[in-house]
Amino acid sequence: MTATLLPPTARQDLRVFSNPSSVAVVGASDDPAKWGYWLASGALTGEHRRTVHLVNSRSRTVLGRPCAAGIGELAETPELVALCVPASHVDAVVDDALERGVRGFLGITAGIADDAALAARITAAGARLIGTNSLGIYDAAHDLRLMWGAPTPGPMAIVSQSGQVGSELMAIGRRHGVGVSRFVSVGNQSDVTAAEVLADLVADDNTGVIALYLESFAHGETLFGVLAGLRALGKPTVLLTVGASGASARLARTHTGSLTAPLDVVDAACRAAGVVRVATPTEVIDVARGLLTASPARGRRVAIIGDSGGQSGIAADVAVAAGLEVPPLPTAVADRLARDLPAGAACSNPVDLAGAGEQDLATYGRVIAEVRAHGDVDAVVLTGYFGCYGQDTPALSDAEVAVAVAMSCASDIPLLVHTMAPESTAAQALWDHGVPAYGDIAAVMRVLAALTTGAPAPRPVSAPAGRETPPGSGYWAARTWLGAAGIPFPRGELVHDDHELSSAANDLTAPLVLKADWLEHKSDAGGVCIGLRDRPQIDASFADMYRRLGPGAFVLEEQDQRPDAVEVLVAARRDPDLGPVVVVGAGGTETEVHRDISMECAPVSAQTARAMLDGLRIAPLLRGWRGRTPVDVPALADLVATVSSLIATHPDITEIELNPVRVTATGALAVDALVLTRPDDFA
Amino acid sequence: MTATLLPPTARQDLRVFSNPSSVAVVGASDDPAKWGYWLASGALTGEHRRTVHLVNSRSRTVLGRPCAAGIGELAETPELVALCVPASHVDAVVDDALERGVRGFLGITAGIADDAALAARITAAGARLIGTNSLGIYDAAHDLRLMWGAPTPGPMAIVSQSGQVGSELMAIGRRHGVGVSRFVSVGNQSDVTAAEVLADLVADDNTGVIALYLESFAHGETLFGVLAGLRALGKPTVLLTVGASGASARLARTHTGSLTAPLDVVDAACRAAGVVRVATPTEVIDVARGLLTASPARGRRVAIIGDSGGQSGIAADVAVAAGLEVPPLPTAVADRLARDLPAGAACSNPVDLAGAGEQDLATYGRVIAEVRAHGDVDAVVLTGYFGCYGQDTPALSDAEVAVAVAMSCASDIPLLVHTMAPESTAAQALWDHGVPAYGDIAAVMRVLAALTTGAPAPRPVSAPAGRETPPGSGYWAARTWLGAAGIPFPRGELVHDDHELSSAANDLTAPLVLKADWLEHKSDAGGVCIGLRDRPQIDASFADMYRRLGPGAFVLEEQDQRPDAVEVLVAARRDPDLGPVVVVGAGGTETEVHRDISMECAPVSAQTARAMLDGLRIAPLLRGWRGRTPVDVPALADLVATVSSLIATHPDITEIELNPVRVTATGALAVDALVLTRPDDFA
Repeated sequence: MTATLLPPTARQDLRVFSNPSSVAVVGASDDPAKWGYWLASGALTGEHRRTVHLVNSRSRTVLGRPCAAGIGELAETPELVALCVPASHVDAVVDDALERGVRGFLGITAGIADDAALAARITAAGARLIGTNSLGIYDAAHDLRLMWGAPTPGPMAIVSQSGQVGSELMAIGRRHGVGVSRFVSVGNQSDVTAAEVLADLVADDNTGVIALYLESFAHGETLFGVLAGLRALGKPTVLLTVGASGASARLARTHTGSLTAPLDVVDAACRAAGVVRVATPTEVIDVARGLLTASPARGRRVAIIGDSGGQSGIAADVAVAAGLEVPPLPTAVADRLARDLPAGAACSNPVDLAGAGEQDLATYGRVIAEVRAHGDVDAVVLTGYFGCYGQDTPALSDAEVAVAVAMSCASDIPLLVHTMAPESTAAQALWDHGVPAYGDIAAVMRVLAALTTGAPAPRPVSAPAGRETPPGSGYWAARTWLGAAGIPFPRGELVHDDHELSSAANDLTAPLVLKADWLEHKSDAGGVCIGLRDRPQIDASFADMYRRLGPGAFVLEEQDQRPDAVEVLVAARRDPDLGPVVVVGAGGTETEVHRDISMECAPVSAQTARAMLDGLRIAPLLRGWRGRTPVDVPALADLVATVSSLIATHPDITEIELNPVRVTATGALAVDALVLTRPDDFA
Repeated sequence: MTATLLPPTARQDLRVFSNPSSVAVVGASDDPAKWGYWLASGALTGEHRRTVHLVNSRSRTVLGRPCAAGIGELAETPELVALCVPASHVDAVVDDALERGVRGFLGITAGIADDAALAARITAAGARLIGTNSLGIYDAAHDLRLMWGAPTPGPMAIVSQSGQVGSELMAIGRRHGVGVSRFVSVGNQSDVTAAEVLADLVADDNTGVIALYLESFAHGETLFGVLAGLRALGKPTVLLTVGASGASARLARTHTGSLTAPLDVVDAACRAAGVVRVATPTEVIDVARGLLTASPARGRRVAIIGDSGGQSGIAADVAVAAGLEVPPLPTAVADRLARDLPAGAACSNPVDLAGAGEQDLATYGRVIAEVRAHGDVDAVVLTGYFGCYGQDTPALSDAEVAVAVAMSCASDIPLLVHTMAPESTAAQALWDHGVPAYGDIAAVMRVLAALTTGAPAPRPVSAPAGRETPPGSGYWAARTWLGAAGIPFPRGELVHDDHELSSAANDLTAPLVLKADWLEHKSDAGGVCIGLRDRPQIDASFADMYRRLGPGAFVLEEQDQRPDAVEVLVAARRDPDLGPVVVVGAGGTETEVHRDISMECAPVSAQTARAMLDGLRIAPLLRGWRGRTPVDVPALADLVATVSSLIATHPDITEIELNPVRVTATGALAVDALVLTRPDDFA
């Protein structure tokens, strides 16, 4: 039942980790400071569901229960065994358990010398292992609690590569009234992976949202495929990860031995899968609460309605910082609001009620309904005093709650509320009726931004017909191969000697460029000579390059001299974990200085490519800077889409780079190219 | 006593608004939904300090007290009058009050037609007005409460241009245990300004930190001078403002009629005054709590110590995002930690205790002490489980508190804690001993960044001797004047006709540039011709420009052809509210595209100018890009400092722009210049 989201080779039944028929806690303890205490006492809370065996080699009783000295002593075979013994004892316990026919192991123990060997032994016997170095597991539907801590049941699944981060998510969730459907601390993932655990959530009806912490993205393409599938089933994921800074990358190497994936690739994968990435555990919970409560927004345009100009202004700034838009309202709407509201009210966006709510509480509902119906926006945020009326003036409490319920009426334009009284009865009424109501305006806008995380963008399914990869590694091979795929280059010829040089010079129109074919970084190595206007210059340049760099293949090429060209970088690469991505950016020799780039998972459609270009800081140059003619953006977008298809359909290509592509009103022309393939030993 | 921070003309005694000898609330009411109820009931809480008079033209009693029909009926003259009557009644009440000799008015009433006239009438009588449109005032030291709401006494002064934002700051502060020393909702500032209210805080011994909300910065130089003075007295300010987005600016115009100051200028003013700017009310309170508790950090280098690799990694990412640095620890320290900690611990930065804290709680204190003493960092952050020991295992509670107290030992390296149990006894012990302990890692890093907000950078005191401003508005006048101040330009001559052109062409070395002197945007208007190599080219170019643009002054100039020059923008302008600022950025014709700029209040020292240049994205180009010789950054920094001094010492200059300044290893050369002066009618 969990199989649909995973490739056939990864299909596994993890039922034993959510609803085992019997459990044994090995290393059970009476000492509340020990793991064995938490696992044992947790397991006992499910005794009405399953037999719970406590095992400890040195105690005859634990928690007032009889305790076996070893698994061999038990009258029946437990289906799941929790390992809470010191590392040196694990092998013996696992041997006994496998001999008895145990189906699942939860490895709490840390510091095991050869985790992989342990996992291999377990899986060879047809059993499975979560961990080791797990903080435990929990399943609300089946009263299974085998972990440090005691979750409150609820709709949030927590899957975490760090037990303690999972634990923090649970703690913050509890402070905000969000309980847990399932908790899996996957630990070292020596056998069961996060992707499998996530795929298993398909069948968990209690799960409405997933809080996921990962430090590494091995087999990331599979993993994000699972997350996209879960999202399609109405179970969105909020992802927390590390690697945004050199310092955290330094730690990740020390901590798990995993190479942290660069975050820009992770973000591209998140966009492609409809996953929301946030930066802190607090943000995970804020967003998870919102996703559980409100419907998605179709776009990023938000109307802000406030009863204080100050708070409305702050809300607008925070919205824009969160990537949302706060467009003016249509004139007709502003006019209608102006007729309803007192003089001094602001009626565009933000709307400032200017005391109208205080005069008549129903104003809130009326204005929100008007803006939802005709405001030409994708979401509405109410900010300010609402929620405080009943708190400050108890006589107004019932009326305020009634307005809260009224404003939560069904609409496909979500409403979110920032209130100065997040603990009030009115705020609770909002939550209960599908309107998230936070005490922090930043949380509101962060959640709204998450609600706008669209379903995965449609990906182009067609791709260029299978084509051989370039027969060689040089520039000529690259431009020939890319040219055949439709990418335009200047006219040029391959030359090895004076004779070929002479012939090429006759064929081509000056000014010309001479390039050493085999150099990856031609400019830095003196392997490019531009502006060759006549035969003496061409000959001298060839002689000089030949002398300095030795014999080899050279390319003589016409120099693109179209005025007002914008130089763009178009590149693609294959992330070892997350697969192919395509990159556009400000091109030329200073690309690394400006760091003006946009990345998506490959392939992309020409439409997505265009959106990527629109997102660059240099986008105004493409649109026609200071009165120049706009460049041929459709041609450039097609070129980007082609490069993205090439990387997606050629698994042996690791990198393609065109830098620069020179774009003018008359089209895009690649004037340098590099295609790297996997070394033979990886092929 | 409050005078020292304000210029003499602004010196005012505001004692009547913090400790009046008697108060009258005009418009007092029994209805808890009305302002007159809150003001009257609040005033009565100070009855042991002062006489409180209630006035209402239609009630003989309010809140069980006798109530006068008007101020004229009162047996004594109240020193302070709170106006809670409808706008149409205000004039008559004020007339009566001024006749009786009232010294101060608190204008709660909103919607008064001519606020300025009211204020003028009050000040002409020697009295003062706070408001109108104020939410009220509060002074803890003197039990004065005249506002909507009921503050808890504490160390935070709230000064707000929006009553409701002030109210929200108070509410969030209360949720986090931070009370209020003084609250002033300045409303329309028709008489008493925010700057005056802030200057008055000098003498309030209860105030330890100031939470300030402003929408406009009229007389901003005075205001920030007051804030710098308060900071020097140990009373730092956390500023919340609007204007980061077009939407909030749209609102600000509607709401207050004030033009929102561009935020980059505000940020420059904040840096110059040692003020911390944040984005939301929640952030104000987080930061205010931290500033009240911990000592400042000398720099931005933070060591992160955690008991979970995941949480430490998240902390490092959040730190870097907050502008902090997480440098590796010195090898000797890492070695000592490695000897103390178990295998698997990370010992550089972040430090991951890897279970050592669980084994021995004292480890936390030991590792923190080691890193504080020898870690070569400016602050330490502990992240993770600490705080939960006693909560999860009550037997460990006392030991955990003891460790909390131990780790709070005196040190000039501040310690901040992120804990999964922010409500625990141990967390409270940390707060009580000067260690801020938050449940949200983002709050920790935001607060730490605030703690690194240095004292105002030393500003150069010397300036060029008073110099006349340019005698004309053209390029020649600008380059002559700037050249006299030490800014280098290419050799050039002013020419009006063929004769002067010929003479200049003989004097100068080709290639040359011809410029129309009087055009501000020469390139766009076809007023620049470059690359003139010989007399025929020079003559043709002059003839063409003369024909197209008409007679006038032209400048013939040597063209800077030094290779590998970096083009930089150096500019200065005078903000109408916040005074002179200096700007550096990526220069050339695409300055607006790259938006790579850095701004500070002028004047700046060459050292600050250098830091500004270091902060640009193009800084690597200045340091020597791809093997080029580094450019002469000291010369460029001197040029920036000179420009900053010129704007600072010439009040009639509104703008100076040098774009581009071409910088190479052999120095900086301005190749275009513009100096704008105030129109005569403003002079």
